[in-house]
Amino acid sequence: MNYTIFGESHGPAIGVTLTGVPAGIVLDLDEIDREMARRAPGQNAWSTARRESDRPEILSGFFDGKTTGSPLCAVISNTDTRSGDYSRTRDLARPGHADYPAFVRYSGCNDYRGGGHFSGRLTAPLVFAGAVAKQILAPRGVHIGAHISGIYGISDDVPEGWADLCAVASKEFPVLNDEKGAQMKDAIAQAREEQDSVGGSIECAVFGLPAGLGSPDFGENAEGIFSQYLFAVPAVKAVAFGAGTAFSLMRGSEANDPLYLDDDGSVKAEQNCAGGINGGITNGMPLVFEVTMRPTPSIARPQFTVDLARMENAVLELQGRHDPCVVPRAVPVIEAAAALAACQLMGI
Amino acid sequence: MNYTIFGESHGPAIGVTLTGVPAGIVLDLDEIDREMARRAPGQNAWSTARRESDRPEILSGFFDGKTTGSPLCAVISNTDTRSGDYSRTRDLARPGHADYPAFVRYSGCNDYRGGGHFSGRLTAPLVFAGAVAKQILAPRGVHIGAHISGIYGISDDVPEGWADLCAVASKEFPVLNDEKGAQMKDAIAQAREEQDSVGGSIECAVFGLPAGLGSPDFGENAEGIFSQYLFAVPAVKAVAFGAGTAFSLMRGSEANDPLYLDDDGSVKAEQNCAGGINGGITNGMPLVFEVTMRPTPSIARPQFTVDLARMENAVLELQGRHDPCVVPRAVPVIEAAAALAACQLMGI
Amino acid sequence: MNYTIFGESHGPAIGVTLTGVPAGIVLDLDEIDREMARRAPGQNAWSTARRESDRPEILSGFFDGKTTGSPLCAVISNTDTRSGDYSRTRDLARPGHADYPAFVRYSGCNDYRGGGHFSGRLTAPLVFAGAVAKQILAPRGVHIGAHISGIYGISDDVPEGWADLCAVASKEFPVLNDEKGAQMKDAIAQAREEQDSVGGSIECAVFGLPAGLGSPDFGENAEGIFSQYLFAVPAVKAVAFGAGTAFSLMRGSEANDPLYLDDDGSVKAEQNCAGGINGGITNGMPLVFEVTMRPTPSIARPQFTVDLARMENAVLELQGRHDPCVVPRAVPVIEAAAALAACQLMGI
Amino acid sequence: MNYTIFGESHGPAIGVTLTGVPAGIVLDLDEIDREMARRAPGQNAWSTARRESDRPEILSGFFDGKTTGSPLCAVISNTDTRSGDYSRTRDLARPGHADYPAFVRYSGCNDYRGGGHFSGRLTAPLVFAGAVAKQILAPRGVHIGAHISGIYGISDDVPEGWADLCAVASKEFPVLNDEKGAQMKDAIAQAREEQDSVGGSIECAVFGLPAGLGSPDFGENAEGIFSQYLFAVPAVKAVAFGAGTAFSLMRGSEANDPLYLDDDGSVKAEQNCAGGINGGITNGMPLVFEVTMRPTPSIARPQFTVDLARMENAVLELQGRHDPCVVPRAVPVIEAAAALAACQLMGI
Repeated sequence: MNYTIFGESHGPAIGVTLTGVPAGIVLDLDEIDREMARRAPGQNAWSTARRESDRPEILSGFFDGKTTGSPLCAVISNTDTRSGDYSRTRDLARPGHADYPAFVRYSGCNDYRGGGHFSGRLTAPLVFAGAVAKQILAPRGVHIGAHISGIYGISDDVPEGWADLCAVASKEFPVLNDEKGAQMKDAIAQAREEQDSVGGSIECAVFGLPAGLGSPDFGENAEGIFSQYLFAVPAVKAVAFGAGTAFSLMRGSEANDPLYLDDDGSVKAEQNCAGGINGGITNGMPLVFEVTMRPTPSIARPQFTVDLARMENAVLELQGRHDPCVVPRAVPVIEAAAALAACQLMGI
Repeated sequence: MNYTIFGESHGPAIGVTLTGVPAGIVLDLDEIDREMARRAPGQNAWSTARRESDRPEILSGFFDGKTTGSPLCAVISNTDTRSGDYSRTRDLARPGHADYPAFVRYSGCNDYRGGGHFSGRLTAPLVFAGAVAKQILAPRGVHIGAHISGIYGISDDVPEGWADLCAVASKEFPVLNDEKGAQMKDAIAQAREEQDSVGGSIECAVFGLPAGLGSPDFGENAEGIFSQYLFAVPAVKAVAFGAGTAFSLMRGSEANDPLYLDDDGSVKAEQNCAGGINGGITNGMPLVFEVTMRPTPSIARPQFTVDLARMENAVLELQGRHDPCVVPRAVPVIEAAAALAACQLMGI
Repeated sequence: MNYTIFGESHGPAIGVTLTGVPAGIVLDLDEIDREMARRAPGQNAWSTARRESDRPEILSGFFDGKTTGSPLCAVISNTDTRSGDYSRTRDLARPGHADYPAFVRYSGCNDYRGGGHFSGRLTAPLVFAGAVAKQILAPRGVHIGAHISGIYGISDDVPEGWADLCAVASKEFPVLNDEKGAQMKDAIAQAREEQDSVGGSIECAVFGLPAGLGSPDFGENAEGIFSQYLFAVPAVKAVAFGAGTAFSLMRGSEANDPLYLDDDGSVKAEQNCAGGINGGITNGMPLVFEVTMRPTPSIARPQFTVDLARMENAVLELQGRHDPCVVPRAVPVIEAAAALAACQLMGI
Repeated sequence: MNYTIFGESHGPAIGVTLTGVPAGIVLDLDEIDREMARRAPGQNAWSTARRESDRPEILSGFFDGKTTGSPLCAVISNTDTRSGDYSRTRDLARPGHADYPAFVRYSGCNDYRGGGHFSGRLTAPLVFAGAVAKQILAPRGVHIGAHISGIYGISDDVPEGWADLCAVASKEFPVLNDEKGAQMKDAIAQAREEQDSVGGSIECAVFGLPAGLGSPDFGENAEGIFSQYLFAVPAVKAVAFGAGTAFSLMRGSEANDPLYLDDDGSVKAEQNCAGGINGGITNGMPLVFEVTMRPTPSIARPQFTVDLARMENAVLELQGRHDPCVVPRAVPVIEAAAALAACQLMGI
């Protein structure tokens, strides 16, 4: 299964083409809508109208309620785009954004309106693709859960298992510990008030993957496969498996998971420091990873930058309201990336 | 350029096949030897003999001192392998190692002697491939440096530029601050004494990459490309770019790099929080990342595990001397992975 | 540049996603329309209405008249689809069609209406993609021409160069020798009258490719690359380069192209038996190949077949009017495949 | 499974790296030797010594008589290479050979001695890879057979099934009709006498492939996959499936294979015009194709060419004895390519 996301924030439509989808998968479109809603902006009572306009239309690869096995293309129309007046800011490279490298990469021809192909809106088709992937994985016993593990230094609790993370997914603010969640929301509100933004992290687990998937070799190892999907999510700057960066503080005697034979005859690890992967191959334990997401680069404060048309130093003052923290809405996006990675690992 | 590493620790030979090598690259074989020596075991006065036996023989793709453009295959003979008596431990899955997942993945047919294809020895051909890649990159103005950024919680200084990291590469113990280096060595010695091992981290920078390489899209983004090469290095469990996991503690106003026009007319970032990448595309600043490496899983302490032949719980006591910390010898390996990733990013 | 064609004959839309398109290519949409018209059914005075409905809508990757470098998706709505009554024939595998293998491949879930994803209609997005590719190639001096080289044993003349094939492209019935063309049309008309169809062949040349593209190695050789694009066109059953199958009748002294130095200092071949490729690498001469296309499998005559639902022998009588020969309309399709292949070969 | 062939005719060694080999395949090394012998030069009483020197040494991926699942590398030493004096001819591009395009492609750095990486000798590792692939396919019920279908216009009989083609494989001159074989040998001898060479064709069939493999889409269709492997064999200039180029002479009523239900409940085609493939997907019938091979370009007659060093016209007179027809020895090579293609199609 491969995916290609296309579209620009202010173009006619955004969407995704999925190839290699197995034939005969019954797609629950309402479930897909629910996944889309988790990522949609303004997740509250009055957001219904917006959600509907984000509903993807499946153009191909879907017939009689099932996937056909041919490429599946889904599009979401950009009905709501008022391009507005970009003349004042279009040449000012927004710090922390891809404006400058994209200007070089695309010879100044990329669609600059609303972030163009770099817009966070492009994660909507990714969530769609992930929702399809989840419906392929679920009948195979593979499930995915995630929570906000931290925002601006405030950490959520450590999940104990699938049940914990499953309950979290249906929450408006997906944390295990709501008290910590309240503190995180305060930190976000505070940042917004100060015309600023905050970063954070998401922890995600894939449950039910069998042992023996992946390989130590380049292009096939489980960590490499997952990381490629995860770094394709905007704002992700670090990916860590199992104990992650804490491994640098540990001894082998702590980091090595003692193995034992479980009652069902399977080999298990007592802890799961390895995050379900040894030597690039799944070991049958939950595949656990954490991603770090940078603070939203769109902030209202004046920022020093360069005018790319005149090639001179300039000051940028961004207008408009921006998400002061992308982490909460990114939880289903990370799950989607994990679902697609899990499909690749399983040879789907 | 693609690479395939082959071989097992106790088979006839290990090696690498490199395809897509540009034609006409003059290879400095002595320089390759020096790179190999940086990774070789026993880096001290009496290690010469060992080093020579590790010298790769180039079988193809190299003629009259230059690459031909056809696949380049180099092999290193395994002259030194005494397979010894594995009968006592071959069925006991070593905790922290890939023994159990490999047993499942390869139906029990993988070569178990000395770690087989999972052996750290397999990083030797990777260093060879990286040494070739470096000689392709250097004339294009791209250079790579790295240092041990931390071991068991002891942190090295932060490098200030290419000159710093270049000086480090020629050191026996590649740290900027030798005092910190001495503390790290103590931590390693202490772990060894206690039949244990320690983890750590390596920071690496690629200097001279032009702006505009990569893309936000899956399979093309700079972070995704680098991470795939880095996670293919044994023991790497986390990859972080620029400020990395610290982004989760930051505000946008801290994380956004103000841009300015440099005297030479180029656009620069004041800090380099983004690690040289925005939106998956290089921005012309040094590409900086840190990898976390788990503690060596081979420790002499008794460990609980499972006997995979009898499928029963067991206790493993490993014999032999193992590296109590792989981080120092992994520095050139990480550089090699970075060199190969840089080649892919540059379309070489 | 990669392309993915999606859609089913009677679904909401068909289309194509193109990735890796260079940024800044000015697209001449009228020229694209003309290419689409060459393939469109009913090429004559009253076909305008049909042609308009086939006009592709570009959803992404195109801004201010130029490609952006991000994925370009174009869709063509299926406005004209009356699914009709398939109940009588949907389980009867049409001989010569993919009905039976697709039934196995897609577990009976593929869209059977009007051929579904196998419909000849799916070549419309391919022509669109090819038209884009041609506009990338033309400024680089690479041009493509093709003609019907034979239908039901009647052979067209041998073209002498780019000028010949260029003139052919604008013809309603693309042959060099109109007398032979008239005979071919007669053969087609005769077949139609007898409720039958005929096969034929198309010869195509790519002019202006520089020498030195490709490699002898698997996955990189020029013939392998072209053939993969060409066999992806429905009904193509043979691909031959240069003298093609006639090589089996030749001696080396006939087949070897004597080389000489041209007035402009370039190395040329006296004939072009090799079809512009030696050892998998372009030699600077026009890249010439011929494809053989099987007769349209949809014929009105009663045919023996199997009912896949009841798994019993059956007789099929197809209704409706079918193209008695796909070759004429396939000329721009083959050119499109060649244009995409040429882009890959040139590293675009 | 992927293969990379490396080496040059006069370098230290040639070989192949195979990745993705399933673990646990018992390799019959004697059978591999027999396959190698079929391709070896001088197939007669006194060729034993030569054959032994061609024996591949497996360096990796093979342990205790079985594949390990890790990359398998095999090398064949070039013991017999007397580089001789190339000074007189090294700059004269041999007509029909890749000398000129390779000179451009590899900036004059390719190894010119004995054809270098373009040498027919490089088909030896391909036969090795194919022999491994055959041993993976055989237990899955997939077998491959081939015969010389024509040389210089003399055609062999049409095979009737697997038994016919199996018997052929063990012959010194693999034709069904030995009388025709004798005529072919005469044609070869005649050409040799006249310092010339002849072309021919090979027909190959893959028996036992299940229906439902492949897809109509680019990169996945059965014909495209096979053709990519086949065109990677030196001297192959045309690939045709089933009725092949004869389709252009046929009507749909002839070309359509009537389907029927076989006694064993499977769907069969009465003839096999489609060569086992409809719409890019296997239909359960034998997959049949024919390749055309150009006459050996190395002929002793004086030929006009260009001196690439001096860039002036020249006359080339090749010394040494060359194979006046590569077709007989290419039979196991084509089978090898087919075996590797079949593995890819089966997802191995």
